[in-house]
Amino acid sequence: MPYTVNIKSHKKTLRANKSDTLVDTIQKAGINLSVYCDRKGVCGKCFVEILEGALPPPSKNEKYLIEQKKYPPNYRLACLYRIKGDIRINIPEESILQEAVILTSGLRSAVPVHPAVKKFHLQLPKPEISVPLSLMEILERHLKKKKLQAPSGLLRNMGRVLEKSKYNVTVVTYKDKDLLDIESQNTQALNYGLAIDIGTTTLALELINLNTGETMGFTTSLNSQSIRGADVVSRISYSFKDMKKLDKLRDQIRDDINSMIDELLKKTQVDPIHVYDCVVAGNTAMNHFFLGLPADTLAIAPYHSVFSCLPELSSRELGLRINSNAKVYIAPNIKSFVGGDISAGLVASDLAQKKGIYLFIDLGTNGEIVLKTEKEIIATSTAAGPAFEGMKISCGMLALPGAIYKAKFEDKLKTYTLGNKPAKGICGTGLIDLIAIFLELGKVAPSGKINGKLKKILIRNKIFISQNDIREMQLACAAIKTGIKMMLDEHHLTKDRLDGIYIAGAFGNYLNIKNSMKIGLLPRIDQDKILFIGNASLAGAKNMLVSAESRKIIENLVRKIRFVSLASRPSFQQRFVEALEFSSTL
Amino acid sequence: MPYTVNIKSHKKTLRANKSDTLVDTIQKAGINLSVYCDRKGVCGKCFVEILEGALPPPSKNEKYLIEQKKYPPNYRLACLYRIKGDIRINIPEESILQEAVILTSGLRSAVPVHPAVKKFHLQLPKPEISVPLSLMEILERHLKKKKLQAPSGLLRNMGRVLEKSKYNVTVVTYKDKDLLDIESQNTQALNYGLAIDIGTTTLALELINLNTGETMGFTTSLNSQSIRGADVVSRISYSFKDMKKLDKLRDQIRDDINSMIDELLKKTQVDPIHVYDCVVAGNTAMNHFFLGLPADTLAIAPYHSVFSCLPELSSRELGLRINSNAKVYIAPNIKSFVGGDISAGLVASDLAQKKGIYLFIDLGTNGEIVLKTEKEIIATSTAAGPAFEGMKISCGMLALPGAIYKAKFEDKLKTYTLGNKPAKGICGTGLIDLIAIFLELGKVAPSGKINGKLKKILIRNKIFISQNDIREMQLACAAIKTGIKMMLDEHHLTKDRLDGIYIAGAFGNYLNIKNSMKIGLLPRIDQDKILFIGNASLAGAKNMLVSAESRKIIENLVRKIRFVSLASRPSFQQRFVEALEFSSTL
Repeated sequence: MPYTVNIKSHKKTLRANKSDTLVDTIQKAGINLSVYCDRKGVCGKCFVEILEGALPPPSKNEKYLIEQKKYPPNYRLACLYRIKGDIRINIPEESILQEAVILTSGLRSAVPVHPAVKKFHLQLPKPEISVPLSLMEILERHLKKKKLQAPSGLLRNMGRVLEKSKYNVTVVTYKDKDLLDIESQNTQALNYGLAIDIGTTTLALELINLNTGETMGFTTSLNSQSIRGADVVSRISYSFKDMKKLDKLRDQIRDDINSMIDELLKKTQVDPIHVYDCVVAGNTAMNHFFLGLPADTLAIAPYHSVFSCLPELSSRELGLRINSNAKVYIAPNIKSFVGGDISAGLVASDLAQKKGIYLFIDLGTNGEIVLKTEKEIIATSTAAGPAFEGMKISCGMLALPGAIYKAKFEDKLKTYTLGNKPAKGICGTGLIDLIAIFLELGKVAPSGKINGKLKKILIRNKIFISQNDIREMQLACAAIKTGIKMMLDEHHLTKDRLDGIYIAGAFGNYLNIKNSMKIGLLPRIDQDKILFIGNASLAGAKNMLVSAESRKIIENLVRKIRFVSLASRPSFQQRFVEALEFSSTL
Repeated sequence: MPYTVNIKSHKKTLRANKSDTLVDTIQKAGINLSVYCDRKGVCGKCFVEILEGALPPPSKNEKYLIEQKKYPPNYRLACLYRIKGDIRINIPEESILQEAVILTSGLRSAVPVHPAVKKFHLQLPKPEISVPLSLMEILERHLKKKKLQAPSGLLRNMGRVLEKSKYNVTVVTYKDKDLLDIESQNTQALNYGLAIDIGTTTLALELINLNTGETMGFTTSLNSQSIRGADVVSRISYSFKDMKKLDKLRDQIRDDINSMIDELLKKTQVDPIHVYDCVVAGNTAMNHFFLGLPADTLAIAPYHSVFSCLPELSSRELGLRINSNAKVYIAPNIKSFVGGDISAGLVASDLAQKKGIYLFIDLGTNGEIVLKTEKEIIATSTAAGPAFEGMKISCGMLALPGAIYKAKFEDKLKTYTLGNKPAKGICGTGLIDLIAIFLELGKVAPSGKINGKLKKILIRNKIFISQNDIREMQLACAAIKTGIKMMLDEHHLTKDRLDGIYIAGAFGNYLNIKNSMKIGLLPRIDQDKILFIGNASLAGAKNMLVSAESRKIIENLVRKIRFVSLASRPSFQQRFVEALEFSSTL
């Protein structure tokens, strides 16, 4: 005979059988209770107020926690409470699982806060002479875990910390199996992680409060590896079969990240020892360089990487200036040039969970395209060349202050610069706008040829577009266009079947959809279906930091994604040539 | 309807059902087939000859292996063969699982060779452009393992080794989950491990062939920590709350072990990079020092250690001069002063599997006593003082050349020295013989008092026994005697219920049973029940090296052993005083 559980705070009445735990009953009803310690009665996060019904005497730990938290005596842990009759309860706000809101430009996703790192405040009993447990055994018993792993340095200091704190400590665990640290007194509130995006050109870093999922600070910086070459291929060439040069690239990226960490922690007044977890997302070459692994095999056929998924590493091994036992998780590479930035992007866009047919495109020197159908997910990468990043363009530049990033034609040509600074050059989005305008005005033919005798078109002062610049953009667009076309073909789909296109990359923020369609970069579909999601790599890294579960999900997904090799298809060349025409459509 | 499987080589006929694998059928019949790769058809160790019956076409890998091993075409892997009708087979000698014979002085146990480290020779396909798997994925697929973990250094060199060897490599795995190394060509035959016994006074090291379980070499050395104090307590005092001194002790022991490794590998002409696994057994203080962990808490009540079981460490972390990715496993501590030497001893004596009631005693400065009954295993340690090791004795010395280790009285006193060298002093066993003789002759009273006016008894030249020396031995014997008595009492047993006593420690080899009983060190039971097992710590370490399974077994056992604290029992003092009388019996 089932009993009733009335939840006053949520105005719900549930049914439960004898001996069901209260936590399961509440969870089943769709109320997300905070269960931090896997229902072991240790963490004290799932307290509820028993208004009516049986009130069993509190366990030793419950009693301690009720005193600590100054709760009324009718509070009990839902994970320990077994239903024996009808009850009426209240669920306090703080026992509801928090969700972190993760923003990318176009997406806003709420992620339940379930970090890999947890902190438990414990008042431990001293070992007894009659049962002289080891210090590790005492911790294991109190956390109700078997076989916790602790690094040597931690084992070395454990006795001292316990003695000094009189066994009043906060222990830091990772994935419920590793012990990361043991700290005097209650430091539960100080629990941080870093989301790190390693771009070929730009690095971005976000400091996250792992208890709440909140962003505490953000910083970006240029990747100093750029002095060894602006693009991935030139950096691979630089370090080709040369471990010393590889080490230089590794050290450069690590130094960059450490400087950013120092700056961010100083600004937010967070102690480095309270940073316990990092998620690093970067393209395959970048994560190889960050780890000091040769990327040589990425540069020559059959273009393969050294690893796809890696278990978490330690910050000590990587030389990051945070807690030396902190973990560093590398977002998995999908295949070759479809790297961790894309797998992180898939996490951020939640693509795998979507119903329908979606494209995910990351526009850059290397264009990655992922197609999600109802049947499977396929991925490819296509070499677009550096035009989107303003490289190899006569007056081209990165999207930095002074770059013409936008243009309009209303009676006359109007151009806009980033930061409203005097124009220094043209970045990728600006070039797309300009070419679209000149196509419309007939100054440039659909074949890409500049009409008339001139070999270049003057834009402003000394800034111009050359015939060659247009050819570069044609190549870039054709690469993406061919990629999209062949991915759709793989499932015999047309562009009209698409339910949406996600466009990732900082680039996306300034991209004009109409103009992109005019020059054939994007397929002509309903504009509302196109969503710019900005730095999806960083957003995905943050998501994986806040929710350890999403790491498992993406690792399983990555193994299932099928890679489509465009270059090895016989039709590729012909299609590519066809796609060079600006007016050619999908 | 079951089919018959006739095994010509073993003169057995078995029954099997349709689709049973041949390997399972053979194993069930008690024939230990070698199944090295967990039935995945990878290792090629379980080949059988199909004499009659269905002969399915070989798999790609089977075909490769048959060619490699020059087997006749009717050989098939038993793990891949599914029974479809009556068959007749031959099992070649090399497909039977080898067993390693592990010797201690009194025990000879056969351990199935199932090391944690395995080597697989693979001819890998190159990555393909259409399915550009990462190098790690290629290895995982070929080993049929998911999520292999590889250290960074290995990932770094992997591409180079594969390229140079033309994808013809031997991979080294640990517990089927870690990748330890990747080597050019076939190096399967070169697979070694080290069993290391860290004694307070002496270190012992054995090099083992992990493919066969054979001992390749053996060496011993004195523990140079001795200059910081002969016993454990003085070394703990030396390093008490002083991390720098702790580091000195750590470095001393590691330097000693590295010198022994160098010597042993040179002698046996084994390359250090082919040593992939170590098992270290030592008492709690010694394993703490080896790991650089403070042993302070072992010296003051409630006498607890930092750890009991540890996951395997890396040789890189410990600075051992073998393969830098090699694993180092520390035999688990049972409790406080019942350390890894005792858990290794329990493995060597196979105590837990024995039917009946057994004592395991390690005689030393610290006497460890383990009692195994039909119900449970209990353990204790008792401070015997240094008399057994010849310390604090006027003319005492360690059991080194020149020590009187044995004495008889046949008309007159006869003494024997180790190495037949001129007598320099008396070691523990010699002292026991001498006291027993003088007790018998009435020169010493049962109370321990030297009869007559003399305060000392001259033995030979300037070597004598003083009243104080006898007192020291009385204390040592009383500690052991009380320990044994209280352990038996715990289960209301008398000595006559004992089915056997194992005596561990190098000391045991020279111990005279009759004399030990006379002075009350050992209980008076049937002499045949007393077994000296010598260095059981080293034998146990070797066992755990050869059989990874025994590590799991001992870890589970250690958690279940109940510690009996003698000193905290109110009856301890009174019993100890009673036991001081040489003639007092259990």
